[in-house]
Amino acid sequence: MGDAKYDVLGIGNAIVDVLSRTDDAFLAQRGLSKGGMQLIDEAQAQALYADMAPAVEISGGSAANTIAGIASLGGRTAFFGKVRNDQLGDVFAHDIRSLGVTFETAAATMGPATARCLVLVTPDGERTMSTYLGASVGFGPDDVDDAVVAAAQVTYLEGYLWDPQEAKQAFRKAARTARDAGRMVSLSLSDAFCVDRFRGEFRELVRDDVDVLFANEAEIMSLYEVDSFDEAMQIVRKECRLAALTRSAAGCVITRGDEIHVVDAAKVDSVEDTTGAGDLFAAGFLRGLTQDFELTRCAELGALAAAEVISHIGARPEKDLSALAAEHGLV
Amino acid sequence: MGDAKYDVLGIGNAIVDVLSRTDDAFLAQRGLSKGGMQLIDEAQAQALYADMAPAVEISGGSAANTIAGIASLGGRTAFFGKVRNDQLGDVFAHDIRSLGVTFETAAATMGPATARCLVLVTPDGERTMSTYLGASVGFGPDDVDDAVVAAAQVTYLEGYLWDPQEAKQAFRKAARTARDAGRMVSLSLSDAFCVDRFRGEFRELVRDDVDVLFANEAEIMSLYEVDSFDEAMQIVRKECRLAALTRSAAGCVITRGDEIHVVDAAKVDSVEDTTGAGDLFAAGFLRGLTQDFELTRCAELGALAAAEVISHIGARPEKDLSALAAEHGLV
Repeated sequence: MGDAKYDVLGIGNAIVDVLSRTDDAFLAQRGLSKGGMQLIDEAQAQALYADMAPAVEISGGSAANTIAGIASLGGRTAFFGKVRNDQLGDVFAHDIRSLGVTFETAAATMGPATARCLVLVTPDGERTMSTYLGASVGFGPDDVDDAVVAAAQVTYLEGYLWDPQEAKQAFRKAARTARDAGRMVSLSLSDAFCVDRFRGEFRELVRDDVDVLFANEAEIMSLYEVDSFDEAMQIVRKECRLAALTRSAAGCVITRGDEIHVVDAAKVDSVEDTTGAGDLFAAGFLRGLTQDFELTRCAELGALAAAEVISHIGARPEKDLSALAAEHGLV
Repeated sequence: MGDAKYDVLGIGNAIVDVLSRTDDAFLAQRGLSKGGMQLIDEAQAQALYADMAPAVEISGGSAANTIAGIASLGGRTAFFGKVRNDQLGDVFAHDIRSLGVTFETAAATMGPATARCLVLVTPDGERTMSTYLGASVGFGPDDVDDAVVAAAQVTYLEGYLWDPQEAKQAFRKAARTARDAGRMVSLSLSDAFCVDRFRGEFRELVRDDVDVLFANEAEIMSLYEVDSFDEAMQIVRKECRLAALTRSAAGCVITRGDEIHVVDAAKVDSVEDTTGAGDLFAAGFLRGLTQDFELTRCAELGALAAAEVISHIGARPEKDLSALAAEHGLV
């Protein structure tokens, strides 16, 4: 692959999460699909926010969370994503840069505000997300710095990029550049509803362009429109070089051709907030993969990072994941 | 006292906290006085923020935290404080209003941004604060709505208001209006360094205008320039009608003339972040006082609210304090 300046480049929507606690009745009243992500416009965001309890603002964004996790595990990382030059944009940029992540995408100087995701956390720790994409929709092919893509061992993309039109073009450009440079392309399917919106295109992508796929049970079953996890797994084994399929407390399954591994979830005392669980699993897994760890060890690192992030509010790790991994004998 | 529409009106700087974890070495390098609050200008705020780890944004402000606590305990509350009409100003307004607090102070439409407090939390849970007052300095006598002051059983003021010139005038106006309406005036000394800046004026205030004083050990010793807690307590008994003196894990002492009560701190499994401990003690105490509870029960409510807030990051309660108080048989 040649020398890589970065282990992983992440590309995704640059979002600040606004997290507050609620109950199931509130979700039902609002017609919100528990555990899912819906897109909302600015007026809807204002109306929902007005009804929400006091909140905490923490940097988020699916791929950005993954990159933050890899950085916390000691990996060399970069991120592309679009904020506006406003206070929440400054928060996003500060938080990711302070981890040592290279983040140089120019902030928008006009147009919609920095994207925010209104995250409602129910007592069971499940999160339900309503995202106002804001400035993220301004992310386009011109924001993809080919030199950075070519210098990254893995380019990691979130499925959510398929929602804003320009971002989708940026995704395609980055994937092509990475392939041409002999690098790996990795995709997270993001969300079962997102898969539903773009099933045909995602199937093609997975078959033709993706080296490492991340999906949870609902997403992979939605992708192939099957009713059981096992059926989905049999298909993805044939379609994709390497797939990491997560199943919450039931652990994960890793497939690479004939090779299949079933790895347990890491122990968590109390699940506070599942926001970022999948993102951090991907972080640990990719950190292992870019160090040529065995697949089971990659999965264990992913499980450990996911366990840390669901034990507190917010989708970014609170602990130094390198130290945590060392404690668990994984690095 | 006549019928009161509000139990407690709080007046203070309207601030969003930016919290991140650090170590003692970082504080030492920066010459920051551990456990204290220093005022910084915008350039200093930017420089410090740039060096800080990833952070969480949570509404703060000393008196505002107290009001949030009283609201969470079921009290009827209002708050005066100045934000700018920017994103962090919206966050502050949302969080306090969503608790049912009446908050109608007009946001500034020009001038400095909403105030923020950079809070560095060390591994022992101690917090060290650097505050950029921003839009708070625009808070003045015109922002004091006399009708609201007259309709509040207690007007609660933070000592930090003495820093911005206009706010000090607003403080004096509100205290006078409250007294004229036969209402109670309560003051929190805020911080030992703040006491040091305004010792003479605070002594006069405590003697002439304050019905209920809140101070911690360092603050009350600084106010009277004595070397022991006991000496300070003997003076404040004579000078102030009712004083609630907090001593961290050693509990608190309440003095009202000849009456003296020594009440234990509430148990905490793990002290995560002491930000807001004094603010929430005042919340519980005032909630009890405005319901004519006995002084020991007021102190126990204060201790319980303080214990909740130091068990997690951020200076606003995460739990419903009414429910918590009920569990502990205090309401």
